[in-house]
Amino acid sequence: MTDRPANDSIDILERIADTLATRNPARGGDPSTSYVAKLLAKGPDAFLKKIGEEATEVVLAAKDADPDKILYETADLWFHCLVMLEHYGLRPRQVIDELARREGLSGLAEKAARPPS
Amino acid sequence: MTDRPANDSIDILERIADTLATRNPARGGDPSTSYVAKLLAKGPDAFLKKIGEEATEVVLAAKDADPDKILYETADLWFHCLVMLEHYGLRPRQVIDELARREGLSGLAEKAARPPS
Amino acid sequence: MTDRPANDSIDILERIADTLATRNPARGGDPSTSYVAKLLAKGPDAFLKKIGEEATEVVLAAKDADPDKILYETADLWFHCLVMLEHYGLRPRQVIDELARREGLSGLAEKAARPPS
Amino acid sequence: MTDRPANDSIDILERIADTLATRNPARGGDPSTSYVAKLLAKGPDAFLKKIGEEATEVVLAAKDADPDKILYETADLWFHCLVMLEHYGLRPRQVIDELARREGLSGLAEKAARPPS
Repeated sequence: MTDRPANDSIDILERIADTLATRNPARGGDPSTSYVAKLLAKGPDAFLKKIGEEATEVVLAAKDADPDKILYETADLWFHCLVMLEHYGLRPRQVIDELARREGLSGLAEKAARPPS
Repeated sequence: MTDRPANDSIDILERIADTLATRNPARGGDPSTSYVAKLLAKGPDAFLKKIGEEATEVVLAAKDADPDKILYETADLWFHCLVMLEHYGLRPRQVIDELARREGLSGLAEKAARPPS
Repeated sequence: MTDRPANDSIDILERIADTLATRNPARGGDPSTSYVAKLLAKGPDAFLKKIGEEATEVVLAAKDADPDKILYETADLWFHCLVMLEHYGLRPRQVIDELARREGLSGLAEKAARPPS
Repeated sequence: MTDRPANDSIDILERIADTLATRNPARGGDPSTSYVAKLLAKGPDAFLKKIGEEATEVVLAAKDADPDKILYETADLWFHCLVMLEHYGLRPRQVIDELARREGLSGLAEKAARPPS
Protein backbone atom coordinates (compact mmCIF):
# COMPACT_ATOMS: atom_id res chain seq x y z
CA MET A 1 0.00 0.00 0.00
CA THR A 2 3.00 2.29 0.32
CA ASP A 3 3.45 3.58 -3.21
CA ARG A 4 0.08 5.13 -3.92
CA PRO A 5 -1.55 8.22 -2.56
CA ALA A 6 -3.77 7.89 0.46
CA ASN A 7 -7.37 8.16 -0.66
CA ASP A 8 -9.07 8.60 2.66
CA SER A 9 -8.86 8.34 6.42
CA ILE A 10 -9.15 4.61 6.41
CA ASP A 11 -6.18 4.26 4.05
CA ILE A 12 -4.02 6.32 6.38
CA LEU A 13 -5.23 4.50 9.49
CA GLU A 14 -4.58 1.15 7.78
CA ARG A 15 -1.10 2.26 6.70
CA ILE A 16 -0.28 3.30 10.25
CA ALA A 17 -1.63 -0.06 11.42
CA ASP A 18 0.67 -1.76 8.89
CA THR A 19 3.62 0.10 10.38
CA LEU A 20 2.56 -0.76 13.94
CA ALA A 21 2.35 -4.42 12.92
CA THR A 22 6.02 -4.37 11.90
CA ARG A 23 6.89 -2.97 15.35
CA ASN A 24 5.15 -5.82 17.16
CA PRO A 25 7.83 -7.82 18.99
CA ALA A 26 5.91 -10.90 17.84
CA ARG A 27 6.98 -9.91 14.31
CA GLY A 28 10.51 -8.82 15.08
CA GLY A 29 9.87 -5.30 16.45
CA ASP A 30 12.70 -4.14 18.71
CA PRO A 31 11.66 -2.74 22.12
CA SER A 32 15.08 -1.13 22.51
CA THR A 33 14.60 1.17 19.51
CA SER A 34 10.82 1.51 19.06
CA TYR A 35 8.33 3.12 21.45
CA VAL A 36 5.53 0.98 20.01
CA ALA A 37 7.57 -2.23 20.28
CA LYS A 38 8.29 -1.37 23.91
CA LEU A 39 4.61 -0.70 24.67
CA LEU A 40 3.56 -3.97 23.01
CA ALA A 41 6.34 -5.92 24.74
CA LYS A 42 5.17 -4.70 28.15
CA GLY A 43 1.70 -6.09 27.52
CA PRO A 44 -1.85 -4.68 27.68
CA ASP A 45 -1.62 -2.68 30.91
CA ALA A 46 1.07 -0.45 29.40
CA PHE A 47 -0.97 0.75 26.43
CA LEU A 48 -4.32 0.63 28.24
CA LYS A 49 -2.91 2.96 30.87
CA LYS A 50 -1.93 5.28 28.03
CA ILE A 51 -5.49 5.18 26.66
CA GLY A 52 -6.82 6.33 30.04
CA GLU A 53 -4.14 9.00 30.26
CA GLU A 54 -4.65 10.31 26.73
CA ALA A 55 -8.44 10.38 27.12
CA THR A 56 -7.91 12.63 30.14
CA GLU A 57 -5.60 14.84 28.09
CA VAL A 58 -8.28 15.17 25.40
CA VAL A 59 -10.69 16.27 28.12
CA LEU A 60 -8.18 18.82 29.47
CA ALA A 61 -7.44 20.21 25.99
CA ALA A 62 -11.16 20.45 25.23
CA LYS A 63 -11.89 22.31 28.49
CA ASP A 64 -9.21 24.79 27.39
CA ALA A 65 -10.94 24.99 23.96
CA ASP A 66 -7.45 24.89 22.43
CA PRO A 67 -7.86 23.56 18.85
CA ASP A 68 -4.20 22.57 18.28
CA LYS A 69 -4.03 20.77 21.61
CA ILE A 70 -7.37 19.04 20.97
CA LEU A 71 -6.13 17.70 17.63
CA TYR A 72 -2.78 16.69 19.11
CA GLU A 73 -4.29 14.85 22.08
CA THR A 74 -7.03 13.21 20.01
CA ALA A 75 -4.31 11.94 17.65
CA ASP A 76 -2.44 10.60 20.70
CA LEU A 77 -5.58 8.86 21.95
CA TRP A 78 -6.39 7.29 18.57
CA PHE A 79 -2.75 6.29 18.10
CA HIS A 80 -2.73 4.34 21.35
CA CYS A 81 -6.05 2.76 20.31
CA LEU A 82 -4.28 1.59 17.12
CA VAL A 83 -1.50 0.07 19.25
CA MET A 84 -4.16 -1.69 21.33
CA LEU A 85 -5.94 -2.99 18.21
CA GLU A 86 -2.62 -4.37 16.89
CA HIS A 87 -2.10 -6.28 20.15
CA TYR A 88 -5.48 -7.98 19.75
CA GLY A 89 -5.05 -8.66 16.02
CA LEU A 90 -7.71 -6.11 15.07
CA ARG A 91 -7.63 -3.43 12.38
CA PRO A 92 -8.79 0.18 12.31
CA ARG A 93 -11.06 -0.53 9.32
CA GLN A 94 -13.06 -2.80 11.63
CA VAL A 95 -13.67 0.14 13.96
CA ILE A 96 -14.59 2.34 10.99
CA ASP A 97 -16.90 -0.39 9.68
CA GLU A 98 -18.66 -0.49 13.03
CA LEU A 99 -19.08 3.30 12.90
CA ALA A 100 -20.33 3.10 9.31
CA ARG A 101 -22.79 0.36 10.21
CA ARG A 102 -24.28 2.49 12.97
CA GLU A 103 -24.65 5.46 10.69
CA GLY A 104 -26.28 3.38 7.97
CA LEU A 105 -23.32 3.98 5.66
CA SER A 106 -21.93 1.11 3.64
CA GLY A 107 -18.76 0.08 5.40
CA LEU A 108 -15.31 -0.48 4.09
CA ALA A 109 -15.52 -4.25 4.15
CA GLU A 110 -18.64 -4.11 1.99
CA LYS A 111 -17.05 -1.59 -0.34
CA ALA A 112 -13.94 -3.73 -0.64
CA ALA A 113 -16.15 -6.69 -1.53
CA ARG A 114 -17.61 -4.87 -4.53
CA PRO A 115 -15.89 -5.60 -7.83
CA PRO A 116 -13.78 -2.68 -9.05
CA SER A 117 -15.77 -0.55 -11.48
CA MET B 1 -8.78 -1.49 -2.10
CA THR B 2 -5.75 -0.85 -4.26
CA ASP B 3 -7.35 -0.94 -7.68
CA ARG B 4 -10.28 1.34 -7.18
CA PRO B 5 -10.37 4.75 -8.85
CA ALA B 6 -9.67 7.82 -6.80
CA ASN B 7 -13.12 9.29 -7.36
CA ASP B 8 -14.69 6.28 -5.67
CA SER B 9 -12.95 7.12 -2.45
CA ILE B 10 -15.44 7.74 0.29
CA ASP B 11 -14.10 9.00 3.56
CA ILE B 12 -16.36 7.46 6.13
CA LEU B 13 -15.07 9.51 9.06
CA GLU B 14 -15.68 12.71 7.11
CA ARG B 15 -19.16 11.54 6.16
CA ILE B 16 -20.00 10.80 9.77
CA ALA B 17 -18.65 14.23 10.68
CA ASP B 18 -20.92 15.74 7.99
CA THR B 19 -23.88 13.98 9.58
CA LEU B 20 -22.89 15.12 13.08
CA ALA B 21 -22.67 18.70 11.77
CA THR B 22 -26.33 18.56 10.71
CA ARG B 23 -27.24 17.41 14.22
CA ASN B 24 -25.55 20.41 15.84
CA PRO B 25 -28.28 22.55 17.45
CA ALA B 26 -26.33 25.54 16.09
CA ARG B 27 -27.33 24.26 12.62
CA GLY B 28 -30.88 23.23 13.44
CA GLY B 29 -30.25 19.84 15.08
CA ASP B 30 -33.11 18.84 17.37
CA PRO B 31 -32.14 17.73 20.89
CA SER B 32 -35.57 16.16 21.36
CA THR B 33 -35.04 13.64 18.57
CA SER B 34 -31.26 13.26 18.21
CA TYR B 35 -28.81 11.85 20.77
CA VAL B 36 -25.99 13.87 19.20
CA ALA B 37 -28.02 17.08 19.18
CA LYS B 38 -28.81 16.52 22.86
CA LEU B 39 -25.14 15.92 23.73
CA LEU B 40 -24.06 19.05 21.83
CA ALA B 41 -26.88 21.13 23.34
CA LYS B 42 -25.77 20.19 26.86
CA GLY B 43 -22.29 21.53 26.18
CA PRO B 44 -18.74 20.14 26.51
CA ASP B 45 -19.03 18.42 29.90
CA ALA B 46 -21.69 16.06 28.53
CA PHE B 47 -19.60 14.63 25.69
CA LEU B 48 -16.28 14.91 27.56
CA LYS B 49 -17.73 12.80 30.35
CA LYS B 50 -18.67 10.25 27.68
CA ILE B 51 -15.07 10.24 26.38
CA GLY B 52 -13.81 9.38 29.87
CA GLU B 53 -16.49 6.74 30.25
CA GLU B 54 -15.93 5.14 26.84
CA ALA B 55 -12.14 5.11 27.31
CA THR B 56 -12.73 3.11 30.49
CA GLU B 57 -15.01 0.74 28.58
CA VAL B 58 -12.28 0.19 25.97
CA VAL B 59 -9.92 -0.68 28.83
CA LEU B 60 -12.45 -3.11 30.33
CA ALA B 61 -13.14 -4.78 26.97
CA ALA B 62 -9.39 -5.08 26.29
CA LYS B 63 -8.74 -6.65 29.70
CA ASP B 64 -11.40 -9.22 28.76
CA ALA B 65 -9.61 -9.70 25.38
CA ASP B 66 -13.06 -9.74 23.78
CA PRO B 67 -12.59 -8.71 20.10
CA ASP B 68 -16.22 -7.77 19.40
CA LYS B 69 -16.47 -5.70 22.57
CA ILE B 70 -13.10 -4.03 21.86
CA LEU B 71 -14.30 -2.96 18.39
CA TYR B 72 -17.66 -1.82 19.74
CA GLU B 73 -16.21 0.24 22.58
CA THR B 74 -13.42 1.72 20.42
CA ALA B 75 -16.11 2.78 17.92
CA ASP B 76 -18.03 4.36 20.82
CA LEU B 77 -14.90 6.20 21.96
CA TRP B 78 -14.04 7.49 18.50
CA PHE B 79 -17.67 8.44 17.88
CA HIS B 80 -17.74 10.66 20.96
CA CYS B 81 -14.41 12.14 19.86
CA LEU B 82 -16.11 13.05 16.55
CA VAL B 83 -18.95 14.74 18.50
CA MET B 84 -16.31 16.67 20.48
CA LEU B 85 -14.48 17.71 17.30
CA GLU B 86 -17.78 18.97 15.82
CA HIS B 87 -18.37 21.13 18.90
CA TYR B 88 -14.98 22.80 18.44
CA GLY B 89 -15.35 23.19 14.66
CA LEU B 90 -12.67 20.59 13.97
CA ARG B 91 -12.70 17.70 11.49
CA PRO B 92 -11.54 14.10 11.72
CA ARG B 93 -9.22 14.60 8.72
CA GLN B 94 -7.26 17.04 10.90
CA VAL B 95 -6.69 14.27 13.45
CA ILE B 96 -5.77 11.86 10.63
CA ASP B 97 -3.40 14.48 9.18
CA GLU B 98 -1.69 14.82 12.56
CA LEU B 99 -1.31 11.02 12.71
CA ALA B 100 -0.02 10.93 9.12
CA ARG B 101 2.44 13.73 9.81
CA ARG B 102 3.90 11.82 12.74
CA GLU B 103 4.29 8.68 10.67
CA GLY B 104 5.85 10.56 7.75
CA LEU B 105 2.86 9.78 5.53
CA SER B 106 1.30 12.36 3.23
CA GLY B 107 -1.93 13.43 4.86
CA LEU B 108 -5.40 14.16 3.61
CA ALA B 109 -4.98 17.92 3.54
CA GLU B 110 -2.08 17.50 1.13
CA LYS B 111 -4.12 15.12 -0.97
CA ALA B 112 -6.98 17.62 -1.03
CA ALA B 113 -4.54 20.30 -2.18
CA ARG B 114 -3.55 18.22 -5.20
CA PRO B 115 -5.49 18.89 -8.41
CA PRO B 116 -8.04 16.19 -9.17
CA SER B 117 -6.67 13.66 -11.67
CA MET C 1 -18.13 0.95 65.56
CA THR C 2 -21.71 2.07 65.27
CA ASP C 3 -22.45 3.27 68.81
CA ARG C 4 -19.77 5.86 69.26
CA PRO C 5 -19.20 9.17 67.54
CA ALA C 6 -17.00 9.25 64.48
CA ASN C 7 -13.60 10.51 65.51
CA ASP C 8 -11.95 10.89 62.17
CA SER C 9 -12.10 10.28 58.45
CA ILE C 10 -11.24 6.65 58.78
CA ASP C 11 -14.13 6.05 61.18
CA ILE C 12 -16.56 7.55 58.71
CA LEU C 13 -15.05 5.69 55.75
CA GLU C 14 -15.21 2.44 57.75
CA ARG C 15 -18.81 3.09 58.75
CA ILE C 16 -19.75 3.70 55.12
CA ALA C 17 -17.90 0.48 54.23
CA ASP C 18 -19.94 -1.33 56.91
CA THR C 19 -23.11 -0.07 55.28
CA LEU C 20 -21.91 -1.05 51.81
CA ALA C 21 -21.15 -4.55 53.13
CA THR C 22 -24.80 -4.97 54.16
CA ARG C 23 -25.84 -3.99 50.62
CA ASN C 24 -23.68 -6.68 49.03
CA PRO C 25 -26.03 -9.23 47.40
CA ALA C 26 -23.67 -11.87 48.79
CA ARG C 27 -24.90 -10.77 52.24
CA GLY C 28 -28.53 -10.28 51.38
CA GLY C 29 -28.43 -6.84 49.73
CA ASP C 30 -31.39 -6.31 47.41
CA PRO C 31 -30.54 -5.06 43.88
CA SER C 32 -34.16 -4.02 43.38
CA THR C 33 -34.07 -1.44 46.17
CA SER C 34 -30.40 -0.49 46.56
CA TYR C 35 -28.16 1.28 44.04
CA VAL C 36 -25.08 -0.29 45.65
CA ALA C 37 -26.60 -3.78 45.65
CA LYS C 38 -27.42 -3.33 41.96
CA LEU C 39 -23.87 -2.19 41.14
CA LEU C 40 -22.35 -5.10 43.06
CA ALA C 41 -24.79 -7.59 41.51
CA LYS C 42 -23.80 -6.50 38.01
CA GLY C 43 -20.15 -7.29 38.72
CA PRO C 44 -16.87 -5.38 38.43
CA ASP C 45 -17.37 -3.70 35.05
CA ALA C 46 -20.37 -1.78 36.38
CA PHE C 47 -18.56 -0.05 39.23
CA LEU C 48 -15.22 0.18 37.42
CA LYS C 49 -16.94 2.05 34.59
CA LYS C 50 -18.29 4.43 37.25
CA ILE C 51 -14.75 4.98 38.60
CA GLY C 52 -13.59 6.03 35.12
CA GLU C 53 -16.64 8.23 34.71
CA GLU C 54 -16.37 9.91 38.11
CA ALA C 55 -12.62 10.50 37.70
CA THR C 56 -13.47 12.39 34.50
CA GLU C 57 -16.10 14.38 36.38
CA VAL C 58 -13.53 15.34 39.02
CA VAL C 59 -11.28 16.57 36.19
CA LEU C 60 -14.15 18.58 34.66
CA ALA C 61 -15.12 20.13 38.00
CA ALA C 62 -11.48 21.00 38.73
CA LYS C 63 -11.02 22.66 35.32
CA ASP C 64 -14.04 24.79 36.23
CA ALA C 65 -12.39 25.54 39.61
CA ASP C 66 -15.84 25.04 41.16
CA PRO C 67 -15.27 24.10 44.85
CA ASP C 68 -18.73 22.63 45.51
CA LYS C 69 -18.61 20.54 42.34
CA ILE C 70 -15.04 19.40 43.10
CA LEU C 71 -16.10 18.17 46.55
CA TYR C 72 -19.24 16.53 45.18
CA GLU C 73 -17.45 14.70 42.36
CA THR C 74 -14.50 13.67 44.56
CA ALA C 75 -17.02 12.22 47.02
CA ASP C 76 -18.63 10.36 44.10
CA LEU C 77 -15.26 9.00 42.98
CA TRP C 78 -14.26 7.86 46.48
CA PHE C 79 -17.71 6.36 47.05
CA HIS C 80 -17.40 4.17 43.98
CA CYS C 81 -13.89 3.21 45.13
CA LEU C 82 -15.48 2.04 48.41
CA VAL C 83 -18.00 -0.05 46.44
CA MET C 84 -15.07 -1.55 44.48
CA LEU C 85 -13.16 -2.30 47.69
CA GLU C 86 -16.22 -4.05 49.14
CA HIS C 87 -16.43 -6.30 46.07
CA TYR C 88 -12.83 -7.40 46.57
CA GLY C 89 -13.18 -7.84 50.34
CA LEU C 90 -10.95 -4.85 51.07
CA ARG C 91 -11.45 -1.99 53.54
CA PRO C 92 -10.85 1.75 53.30
CA ARG C 93 -8.53 1.64 56.32
CA GLN C 94 -6.19 -0.49 54.20
CA VAL C 95 -6.01 2.31 51.63
CA ILE C 96 -5.46 4.86 54.41
CA ASP C 97 -2.77 2.63 55.93
CA GLU C 98 -0.99 2.52 52.58
CA LEU C 99 -1.16 6.33 52.40
CA ALA C 100 0.08 6.62 56.01
CA ARG C 101 2.93 4.21 55.32
CA ARG C 102 4.11 6.32 52.38
CA GLU C 103 4.01 9.49 54.45
CA GLY C 104 5.87 7.90 57.32
CA LEU C 105 2.84 8.23 59.58
CA SER C 106 1.81 5.43 61.85
CA GLY C 107 -1.16 3.77 60.21
CA LEU C 108 -4.58 2.91 61.43
CA ALA C 109 -3.92 -0.76 61.83
CA GLU C 110 -1.17 0.12 64.30
CA LYS C 111 -3.45 2.54 66.10
CA ALA C 112 -6.18 -0.07 66.27
CA ALA C 113 -3.68 -2.46 67.86
CA ARG C 114 -3.11 -0.03 70.74
CA PRO C 115 -5.31 -0.58 73.81
CA PRO C 116 -8.10 1.98 74.19
CA SER C 117 -7.11 4.82 76.50
CA MET D 1 -6.48 20.34 64.62
CA THR D 2 -3.70 21.97 66.59
CA ASP D 3 -5.31 22.30 70.03
CA ARG D 4 -6.55 18.82 70.62
CA PRO D 5 -4.69 16.33 72.74
CA ALA D 6 -2.21 14.07 71.01
CA ASN D 7 -3.81 10.89 72.27
CA ASP D 8 -7.08 11.76 70.58
CA SER D 9 -7.88 10.14 67.31
CA ILE D 10 -5.51 11.36 64.64
CA ASP D 11 -7.02 11.98 61.24
CA ILE D 12 -4.51 10.59 58.78
CA LEU D 13 -6.08 12.17 55.71
CA GLU D 14 -5.97 15.58 57.40
CA ARG D 15 -2.36 15.04 58.42
CA ILE D 16 -1.40 14.13 54.88
CA ALA D 17 -3.24 17.24 53.70
CA ASP D 18 -1.25 19.28 56.25
CA THR D 19 1.95 17.88 54.80
CA LEU D 20 0.84 18.56 51.24
CA ALA D 21 0.06 22.16 52.22
CA THR D 22 3.68 22.66 53.29
CA ARG D 23 4.79 21.38 49.87
CA ASN D 24 2.67 23.92 48.01
CA PRO D 25 5.06 26.33 46.21
CA ALA D 26 2.67 29.09 47.33
CA ARG D 27 3.83 28.26 50.88
CA GLY D 28 7.49 27.72 50.15
CA GLY D 29 7.42 24.15 48.79
CA ASP D 30 10.41 23.42 46.58
CA PRO D 31 9.65 21.87 43.16
CA SER D 32 13.27 20.80 42.82
CA THR D 33 13.11 18.47 45.82
CA SER D 34 9.42 17.57 46.23
CA TYR D 35 7.24 15.59 43.81
CA VAL D 36 4.12 17.27 45.20
CA ALA D 37 5.66 20.75 44.94
CA LYS D 38 6.54 20.01 41.32
CA LEU D 39 3.02 18.79 40.53
CA LEU D 40 1.46 21.86 42.16
CA ALA D 41 3.94 24.22 40.45
CA LYS D 42 3.01 22.83 37.04
CA GLY D 43 -0.64 23.68 37.60
CA PRO D 44 -3.92 21.74 37.42
CA ASP D 45 -3.35 19.79 34.20
CA ALA D 46 -0.37 18.01 35.75
CA PHE D 47 -2.25 16.52 38.70
CA LEU D 48 -5.56 16.12 36.84
CA LYS D 49 -3.77 14.03 34.22
CA LYS D 50 -2.49 11.89 37.09
CA ILE D 51 -6.05 11.45 38.40
CA GLY D 52 -7.13 10.10 35.01
CA GLU D 53 -4.08 7.87 34.83
CA GLU D 54 -4.43 6.49 38.37
CA ALA D 55 -8.17 5.86 37.93
CA THR D 56 -7.26 3.72 34.91
CA GLU D 57 -4.67 1.88 37.01
CA VAL D 58 -7.30 1.16 39.66
CA VAL D 59 -9.48 -0.31 36.91
CA LEU D 60 -6.59 -2.44 35.60
CA ALA D 61 -5.69 -3.70 39.09
CA ALA D 62 -9.34 -4.50 39.80
CA LYS D 63 -9.74 -6.44 36.55
CA ASP D 64 -6.72 -8.49 37.68
CA ALA D 65 -8.44 -8.96 41.08
CA ASP D 66 -5.03 -8.32 42.67
CA PRO D 67 -5.69 -7.07 46.25
CA ASP D 68 -2.25 -5.54 46.85
CA LYS D 69 -2.29 -3.73 43.52
CA ILE D 70 -5.88 -2.53 44.12
CA LEU D 71 -4.89 -1.01 47.47
CA TYR D 72 -1.71 0.50 46.02
CA GLU D 73 -3.45 2.07 43.03
CA THR D 74 -6.44 3.28 45.07
CA ALA D 75 -3.97 4.96 47.46
CA ASP D 76 -2.28 6.55 44.43
CA LEU D 77 -5.64 7.80 43.14
CA TRP D 78 -6.72 9.23 46.50
CA PHE D 79 -3.28 10.79 47.02
CA HIS D 80 -3.52 12.71 43.76
CA CYS D 81 -7.05 13.77 44.75
CA LEU D 82 -5.53 15.20 47.96
CA VAL D 83 -2.98 17.11 45.87
CA MET D 84 -5.84 18.45 43.75
CA LEU D 85 -7.84 19.47 46.83
CA GLU D 86 -4.79 21.33 48.19
CA HIS D 87 -4.51 23.30 44.94
CA TYR D 88 -8.12 24.47 45.28
CA GLY D 89 -7.85 25.23 49.00
CA LEU D 90 -10.09 22.30 49.93
CA ARG D 91 -9.64 19.67 52.65
CA PRO D 92 -10.23 15.92 52.71
CA ARG D 93 -12.63 16.30 55.67
CA GLN D 94 -14.93 18.23 53.31
CA VAL D 95 -15.06 15.21 51.01
CA ILE D 96 -15.61 12.94 54.01
CA ASP D 97 -18.37 15.27 55.26
CA GLU D 98 -20.09 15.07 51.88
CA LEU D 99 -19.89 11.26 52.04
CA ALA D 100 -21.18 11.26 55.63
CA ARG D 101 -24.02 13.59 54.71
CA ARG D 102 -25.17 11.25 51.96
CA GLU D 103 -25.09 8.27 54.31
CA GLY D 104 -26.93 10.12 57.04
CA LEU D 105 -23.88 9.98 59.31
CA SER D 106 -22.77 12.94 61.37
CA GLY D 107 -19.74 14.37 59.63
CA LEU D 108 -16.44 15.73 60.82
CA ALA D 109 -17.45 19.36 60.59
CA GLU D 110 -20.36 18.66 62.96
CA LYS D 111 -18.05 16.77 65.27
CA ALA D 112 -15.60 19.69 65.24
CA ALA D 113 -18.48 22.02 66.14
CA ARG D 114 -19.29 19.98 69.23
CA PRO D 115 -17.62 21.08 72.44
CA PRO D 116 -14.71 18.85 73.43
CA SER D 117 -15.80 16.23 75.93
